[in-house]
Amino acid sequence: MSSPPTTGVPAPDGAALRAIENLLHEWARAIDEDRVEAAAALLTEDGEYKVVSRFNSDRGLPLALIHCRTAAQLRDRIASMRVANIYEKHFYRHLISGVQVIGEMDGAYEVRANYAVIRIMEHDGAMALFSTGQYRDSVVLEAAGARFRRRHVLYDSRAIDTCLVIPL
Amino acid sequence: MSSPPTTGVPAPDGAALRAIENLLHEWARAIDEDRVEAAAALLTEDGEYKVVSRFNSDRGLPLALIHCRTAAQLRDRIASMRVANIYEKHFYRHLISGVQVIGEMDGAYEVRANYAVIRIMEHDGAMALFSTGQYRDSVVLEAAGARFRRRHVLYDSRAIDTCLVIPL
Amino acid sequence: MSSPPTTGVPAPDGAALRAIENLLHEWARAIDEDRVEAAAALLTEDGEYKVVSRFNSDRGLPLALIHCRTAAQLRDRIASMRVANIYEKHFYRHLISGVQVIGEMDGAYEVRANYAVIRIMEHDGAMALFSTGQYRDSVVLEAAGARFRRRHVLYDSRAIDTCLVIPL
Repeated sequence: MSSPPTTGVPAPDGAALRAIENLLHEWARAIDEDRVEAAAALLTEDGEYKVVSRFNSDRGLPLALIHCRTAAQLRDRIASMRVANIYEKHFYRHLISGVQVIGEMDGAYEVRANYAVIRIMEHDGAMALFSTGQYRDSVVLEAAGARFRRRHVLYDSRAIDTCLVIPL
Repeated sequence: MSSPPTTGVPAPDGAALRAIENLLHEWARAIDEDRVEAAAALLTEDGEYKVVSRFNSDRGLPLALIHCRTAAQLRDRIASMRVANIYEKHFYRHLISGVQVIGEMDGAYEVRANYAVIRIMEHDGAMALFSTGQYRDSVVLEAAGARFRRRHVLYDSRAIDTCLVIPL
Repeated sequence: MSSPPTTGVPAPDGAALRAIENLLHEWARAIDEDRVEAAAALLTEDGEYKVVSRFNSDRGLPLALIHCRTAAQLRDRIASMRVANIYEKHFYRHLISGVQVIGEMDGAYEVRANYAVIRIMEHDGAMALFSTGQYRDSVVLEAAGARFRRRHVLYDSRAIDTCLVIPL
């Protein structure tokens, strides 16, 4: 799992970097505050949201845990989480670290960041380190604000406890 | 537990945002370096420090684990921690993530951030994820620097291990 | 374990602070992406990399877990990790928080930050909170970019699981 180092890449200015960081934080906060639908609105309509293991990614294996090719597919998944899925109620708490712009491609910024998600069960308050990994994002800065054109979640551990209900 | 999204809120400039972020980090570092008294000095004299569960907050229940209505009350609590409380010695390590200014009110910035606190016992080095949650702060930028007018700690899990000695 | 508060220290401008933060994130990402050699390149040739427990540091005890007095010594250690050491394959995921410039000395910035390192075993995906602590860095901003003149890793828990193979 390698990605190009930052050397030689012109850094975005302070305002652009703040907008990018804020986008990542807004996604996390929307999910943690149980406003998951608001996270989906941060993906461009033709955007891609994919959750894939580091193991598969390292070996070029295509299988993903979630693969939404449009924002509509992500909204659909969230609707099913609200309406159809049966699961014990829980929340996430995201920790995001090391937001870095490592390049530019086709008018979008290539962004990397580490994440850890803590899961808290509502019933008994059980807390667990649920998932860690790396966000591999392509971010566009539009008049209406920053949005994800691509959000790949590379998760570290193949051992996912029970199931992945809420998006990471 | 919802809070307004950032949409439509004018972002503070880079220097203001750095001052706000630094305030949150200074609080955390003061506690982690066992200079808890210095954290209390970051609260305005008429400031409020409250630690409340997400469960109670979501239901509008008023009970808080800690509720200091002035900086003097917080200093008092810290003095009691130093002098009166009996507990096994331990330290905290704070991780702060996603500092966002989500609005302005009465000359203060409304700020949100996620936290995780790791507790390390001095005797045997046992490490545990002790608490996660969200800081819901009101921050004023004064000539002397940034300070908290209000710091609400919304903690995720009602299952607190043993007791909360050191402020979060 | 105390260090001077930020009071009275002139803050670096936004661009300098971003360069410093990016240096810390680049170190972490290089290690997490299994490009550990690239982390060593972020230390000046006469730079020092030291990993010491909070317990020893608090008592002025000199013993360190790792003590590289030059970048060459760190490269040597990494080469031995690649070639000579026998261990179960695993990865790290770094979370960095609270990067603060707390002073200037001899043309270098004194920087503090908290870290948590999650360790993920490749075989079974077992995830564990492996180490937390504080980075105590001296950072120089050179024409070629930011680098560490000194990187002291103060780790919180003396109870290290099995052994420390990959640098923190």
